Amino acid sequence: MSKPSPLEFWFEFGSNYSYLSVMRIESIAASAGLTVVWRPFLLGPIFSNNGWSTSPFVLQKAKGDYVWRDMERQCRKYRLAWTKPSQFPRRAILPHRVALFGAAQPWIGEYCRRTMEMNFVQDRDIESVEAVSEILQGMGLDAAATIAQACSDANKVLLRSQTEQAVARGIFGAPTFFIGDEMFWGNDRLEEAIEAGIAGSG
Amino acid sequence: MSKPSPLEFWFEFGSNYSYLSVMRIESIAASAGLTVVWRPFLLGPIFSNNGWSTSPFVLQKAKGDYVWRDMERQCRKYRLAWTKPSQFPRRAILPHRVALFGAAQPWIGEYCRRTMEMNFVQDRDIESVEAVSEILQGMGLDAAATIAQACSDANKVLLRSQTEQAVARGIFGAPTFFIGDEMFWGNDRLEEAIEAGIAGSG
Repeated sequence: MSKPSPLEFWFEFGSNYSYLSVMRIESIAASAGLTVVWRPFLLGPIFSNNGWSTSPFVLQKAKGDYVWRDMERQCRKYRLAWTKPSQFPRRAILPHRVALFGAAQPWIGEYCRRTMEMNFVQDRDIESVEAVSEILQGMGLDAAATIAQACSDANKVLLRSQTEQAVARGIFGAPTFFIGDEMFWGNDRLEEAIEAGIAGSG
Repeated sequence: MSKPSPLEFWFEFGSNYSYLSVMRIESIAASAGLTVVWRPFLLGPIFSNNGWSTSPFVLQKAKGDYVWRDMERQCRKYRLAWTKPSQFPRRAILPHRVALFGAAQPWIGEYCRRTMEMNFVQDRDIESVEAVSEILQGMGLDAAATIAQACSDANKVLLRSQTEQAVARGIFGAPTFFIGDEMFWGNDRLEEAIEAGIAGSG
């Protein structure tokens, strides 16, 4: 009898398809009896490795145009609010540092959803200390202390190493899910990853 | 009361995700009461427009590695046979000329499925006159006459113009579906396109 595997969730706050998965994953995983392992990382270095200066949705105009229409339809399907961001992709190094610092905390899911909603619903900057503080305070956390710890040298190094690990694991976009060594790319594959997790990794 | 819209299906014989849709579309559309409009086109010029010499699955190694694993899983899900092609993407100008020539014929679906199976199940070259003849003869058609008509100057021009039309419509990959002006990209969106078609375009 195999036991359920944890669901590793690699995501980026600037990524619109990560928005869909951040909003959906915790309740779906809970229903399936799976634990989510939150793995924030930065897409920038992955784009750079391909010789790209920014998101392919910006560099490839036809694909970009399509993506915003697809997002409207996907958000309607999942009953999620949606505003096309006026700036894309939004820089989000501080939010990622906080997410990495809090990855094992009970507030991580709520923190990630609020950050995503600030970007993709409220269409606001998410990179500033003010923005991150507002989110943390809204959750009743000590914003100043949390941000200070998230900006420690150790945590900064950890975010870089997490992103290097993403590359080493073969990640080329976000969101990406792992069940053991089995990789699933894209919000469209979340349900398949969950099924694989229920089946267990052995 | 709106009436069902035709389902425009833009595909490429060299494209692995087009394989999934070619195998699935006719029976799904028939169940939904939708007519399929077969629109073969060439991805090469679209890749060139992006400055790419070949498929992104070749140019981006991490993505390419993932795609073959994803194809195994998708084929298992849809109960389709699958062999990773030893040559990718396969050139297929002659098969596309024949598909365009026969796009409104009753044999088009069967012809496309056999061509895709030669590429993605039998792992064979699909570009030669011999390969295309074998497929047409296997369906009881006059191979020599069909190929001669498919290779007329008029039909050659038509394939170029079909590919230009793909670019003009905003197509950036295959398979792509249209219900009226609404575009759906990727085999993962076939079911959404069908739903939109059932709802009708007005």
